Amino acid sequence: MLITLEGIEGSGKSTLIPAMVAYLEDRGHHCVVTREPGGTEAGRQIRAILLSPGNAGLDPMAELLLYEADRAQHVSRVIRPALQQGSIVICDRFCDSTVAYQGAARGISAKVVRDLNELVLGGVTPDLTFLLDLPAEIGLSRAWRQIQSGDRHTQETRFEMETIRFHEKVRQGYLDLARENPERIRVVAADAAREQVRAAIIEQLALRLAADFQP
Amino acid sequence: MLITLEGIEGSGKSTLIPAMVAYLEDRGHHCVVTREPGGTEAGRQIRAILLSPGNAGLDPMAELLLYEADRAQHVSRVIRPALQQGSIVICDRFCDSTVAYQGAARGISAKVVRDLNELVLGGVTPDLTFLLDLPAEIGLSRAWRQIQSGDRHTQETRFEMETIRFHEKVRQGYLDLARENPERIRVVAADAAREQVRAAIIEQLALRLAADFQP
Repeated sequence: MLITLEGIEGSGKSTLIPAMVAYLEDRGHHCVVTREPGGTEAGRQIRAILLSPGNAGLDPMAELLLYEADRAQHVSRVIRPALQQGSIVICDRFCDSTVAYQGAARGISAKVVRDLNELVLGGVTPDLTFLLDLPAEIGLSRAWRQIQSGDRHTQETRFEMETIRFHEKVRQGYLDLARENPERIRVVAADAAREQVRAAIIEQLALRLAADFQP
Repeated sequence: MLITLEGIEGSGKSTLIPAMVAYLEDRGHHCVVTREPGGTEAGRQIRAILLSPGNAGLDPMAELLLYEADRAQHVSRVIRPALQQGSIVICDRFCDSTVAYQGAARGISAKVVRDLNELVLGGVTPDLTFLLDLPAEIGLSRAWRQIQSGDRHTQETRFEMETIRFHEKVRQGYLDLARENPERIRVVAADAAREQVRAAIIEQLALRLAADFQP
């Protein structure tokens, strides 16, 4: 089973993963936690190019192709092998990010993004996706607070430098995806208290496990 | 006018460029000399990933997408603007390298490579291509001599680590392209003496300029 977390900057995706892993491992599932971009050694080098504020002049098509290169390496070297061994893979950002950021927000044609995703995924698609939804102003101001607090996990990237309008387009792209994929994508209100968001995620996870693993 | 140089490792592409530039500038043409991968700042970061022997485990599709990301940036930021200003652009490796290396040699479907090239080129295609052709054993042994002589421009890359068989497939891929594009691609025997290769290139260049710039 491949579970992905999606959402704009500051939506709190990463902070939810430990609770998800604890819940799943308590029930006997082996989990592999990974992320995009940067889930492999070559991918970490690609991530550095993509996020560096020094690469502000990156062409949108070059950006898209770097994300897909990272994904090709990640799917072939990490995700597919882990799924084949029966692990549950939890991935912080995956193919929906590309549709929302490079497609909806940067304006690259939806067909181009979809075709490239299909090319690199080779049939590996998420079984369950949590979309952490909140207004862009709230997400961005959270992200900036984390950056300014000097949290060593949080650095300014090319994406925090984008306008609120850009991040609203990303959000809208995600919500459109959720409407098109109601079975797979669960929208979770991410401007609620952290405990409440966590409870909503665990509840959905429990329902999905019950449906998948019970006779 | 966009002129590209193609050929396997050790075919001597780069050493021919100064003579081409001298010939063209003597006739009043402004030249922009560039290369792939690595013709832009972001491209140099992509080049480092692609060529590093440390990335031996790079998935072929990830490799292809990295080359295309480099090309998207290069076409949009360097080649197209230079062509629009009326310069002659001379590029050391371009779209045919991808067809020969990632298509013919790595085995990715020709259609996938062609579609990606088309996507990133956006109509910018070479007007004239010199294919420096020689047997893979000769090219590789030249490349290794340059590496071992400590030439600061020549470092071992992931490609010198490939087998002779791999490089013979690249050569064959190039020759197939030349057969399909007889008007654009001029095959030059690159195992001749350096002076002779240079003379052959300049002759072709002269013929092409005469055809293009005379009434």
